[in-house]
Amino acid sequence: MADDVLFERVALIGIGLIGSSLARLIKRDGLAGHIVANARSQATLDKVVELGIADSVAINVADAVAGADLVIICSPLGTYPAIGAAIKDHLADGAIVSDVGSVKAMVLRELGAVLPSHVHLVPAHPVAGTEHSGPEAGFADLFDGHWCILTPGPDTDATAVYRVKELWRRAGMKVDLMDAEHHDLVLAVTSHLPHLIAYNIVGTADDLETVTKSEVIKYAAGGFRDFTRIAASDPVMWRDVFLNNREAVLEMLGRFTEDLTALQRAIRWSDGDALHEMFTRTRAIRRGIIEAGQA
Amino acid sequence: MADDVLFERVALIGIGLIGSSLARLIKRDGLAGHIVANARSQATLDKVVELGIADSVAINVADAVAGADLVIICSPLGTYPAIGAAIKDHLADGAIVSDVGSVKAMVLRELGAVLPSHVHLVPAHPVAGTEHSGPEAGFADLFDGHWCILTPGPDTDATAVYRVKELWRRAGMKVDLMDAEHHDLVLAVTSHLPHLIAYNIVGTADDLETVTKSEVIKYAAGGFRDFTRIAASDPVMWRDVFLNNREAVLEMLGRFTEDLTALQRAIRWSDGDALHEMFTRTRAIRRGIIEAGQA
Repeated sequence: MADDVLFERVALIGIGLIGSSLARLIKRDGLAGHIVANARSQATLDKVVELGIADSVAINVADAVAGADLVIICSPLGTYPAIGAAIKDHLADGAIVSDVGSVKAMVLRELGAVLPSHVHLVPAHPVAGTEHSGPEAGFADLFDGHWCILTPGPDTDATAVYRVKELWRRAGMKVDLMDAEHHDLVLAVTSHLPHLIAYNIVGTADDLETVTKSEVIKYAAGGFRDFTRIAASDPVMWRDVFLNNREAVLEMLGRFTEDLTALQRAIRWSDGDALHEMFTRTRAIRRGIIEAGQA
Repeated sequence: MADDVLFERVALIGIGLIGSSLARLIKRDGLAGHIVANARSQATLDKVVELGIADSVAINVADAVAGADLVIICSPLGTYPAIGAAIKDHLADGAIVSDVGSVKAMVLRELGAVLPSHVHLVPAHPVAGTEHSGPEAGFADLFDGHWCILTPGPDTDATAVYRVKELWRRAGMKVDLMDAEHHDLVLAVTSHLPHLIAYNIVGTADDLETVTKSEVIKYAAGGFRDFTRIAASDPVMWRDVFLNNREAVLEMLGRFTEDLTALQRAIRWSDGDALHEMFTRTRAIRRGIIEAGQA
C-alpha cells in the first residue's frame, strides 16, 4: 500500500450526509484502496455511481462487508441491530467495525453482543454535520476542525483503535477517547437537547392561530431562523437519537424545564435583576467557544 | 436639501449596535444634514467621536433633541420613560419621534402619554441585529434585506409615517405597517421566545456537575453553538424586552412548554412515530424561510 493508504477496502453502510462526505474524503486523499458503498435503495446507489464517490456499490449488506478491513455504519441508529445480524457471519478475519452514530452506549450493547470475537468494534462519533441529508449533500471538508469521539470498550485491540483514530485525524478532526456512557451525557446537552428544543419551538410557531406562517417566516431574522436550520435536520436520524439516548435526554430535559420555569417566574413577577444576571452569565460560555475556535 | 437628504437634523438617543449602524448608514448615504449622538456615558461619546460616525455628540438628552426634525431612541426599552420626560419640553415643533425597540405597544403607551401634541410618534422596529453590542459593533449594512415594522397609532400624520418608512427603505429594508399589539405577539414567537430558550439552555449546560464546561465548548458543533450565539446578546436590552412584553411572552412560553412536555412523553414511551411526524413537519417551515430569502 502507498503511504497514505490506511485501509485496503472500506465498506460504508449507508451513504447519506456523513457516509458520502467520508467517501469523498477517502477518495480525495487516497486513504483506502477501495471504497464499497451500501444503501437500502437502488436509487441511492445509482446516485452514488452518478456522483462517482465510491469504487463499487452493493445493495446487499453482507456482500458489501465481504473482504473489507474497515466497515463503517453510517445509517440511522435504528438500523444497527438488523445490520449487525446481517453482517456478523460475513466479516473478514480481524476486520474493524465502526460507526458514526450520535449515541454510543447502545452501539457497544447492540453490536458488541452479536459481532464475532475475531473483529474489533471501535464506535466513533464525528461531531460535525449540516441540516442537509443524502449522498449529494456530503463534502470532503465536513469534518475539518471539529472533534471526533471514539468510545471503544476497555479490552479493545489498541492497533484497531489507533487505525480508526488515524482515519479521523486525516479528515482534519481532533480525536478524543471517552467512556460511551459519558459521551451520551455530554452529547445530550451539546447536541440532542438543542435539536429537541429547536424542533419544538418551530412546531409551536407552526401551530399558532393568531400569527400567520408568513409572518413567522418574514420576521425570522429576530432569532427564530437559527432554530429552523437545526429543526430541518434528518427526521429519521433524530428520531433514533432520542429513542436510543432516552435516559440522558430526559435528565437534561428535566433540568432545562426546571430552569425555564424559574425564568418564566422571573418574567411574570418582573424580576429584572434575576433576568439580567442570567443573561450576563451566558455570555461567558460564548466567549469560551470563540476562544476554543469552535464559532 | 440635496436629493438624498431626508432629514435636516437627526438625533440618535443611544448609540449601540443599532444606533451606530444607523449613524454609519445615514452618514454614508447622506440621508441627513446633521447627526447628533447622545449616550449616558462620556466614554461612549468619546468612542463615537473617535469612530467619526456622528457630526456632534451631546451628553444631555434635552440638548441632543433640540432642533432635530427626527429623534430616534436607540436605547433599551427601560430607558424610554425617563427619556420621554427629559425631552418632551425640548422637541422642535413638528418633530418626528421614533425608536428601534423590540416591543411596540409599550412605546405608544409610555411615550404617547407624555409627548406634546405638536410632535409625531412613529414607533419602528428594524428586525435585524447581531450578538455584539456597543458603537464599535455597528455597520451600515446591518439592516439590508431584512424587514422593518412600523406601528404608528391610527391618527398619526401620514407624512411623518412616510418619512420614517423612507429612511428604513433607504437602509435596504422592506417595511411593513402593523398594529402594535400584533407586532408584540409575532415577535414574541419569532424573536423573544427563541432568545429566552437560548439563554436558558446555555444556563442549564453551565450548571451541570457531570459534564465539564470544556466538554460543552469542545462539542458545541453538534447544535449547541447556534444557541450560544443568540445567548450572547445584550443582557440589558433583553431584560427590558421580557419585562415589557410579558403577556405575549408568557403566552408563547406556555404553548412551548406544553408542546415540549408532549415530546418528552413521546421520548419516555419510545413513541417513534410521534417523534418522526413532528421532526418531518418542521422541515417545511425551513423551506419557507429559504424560499423567502431570509436564510
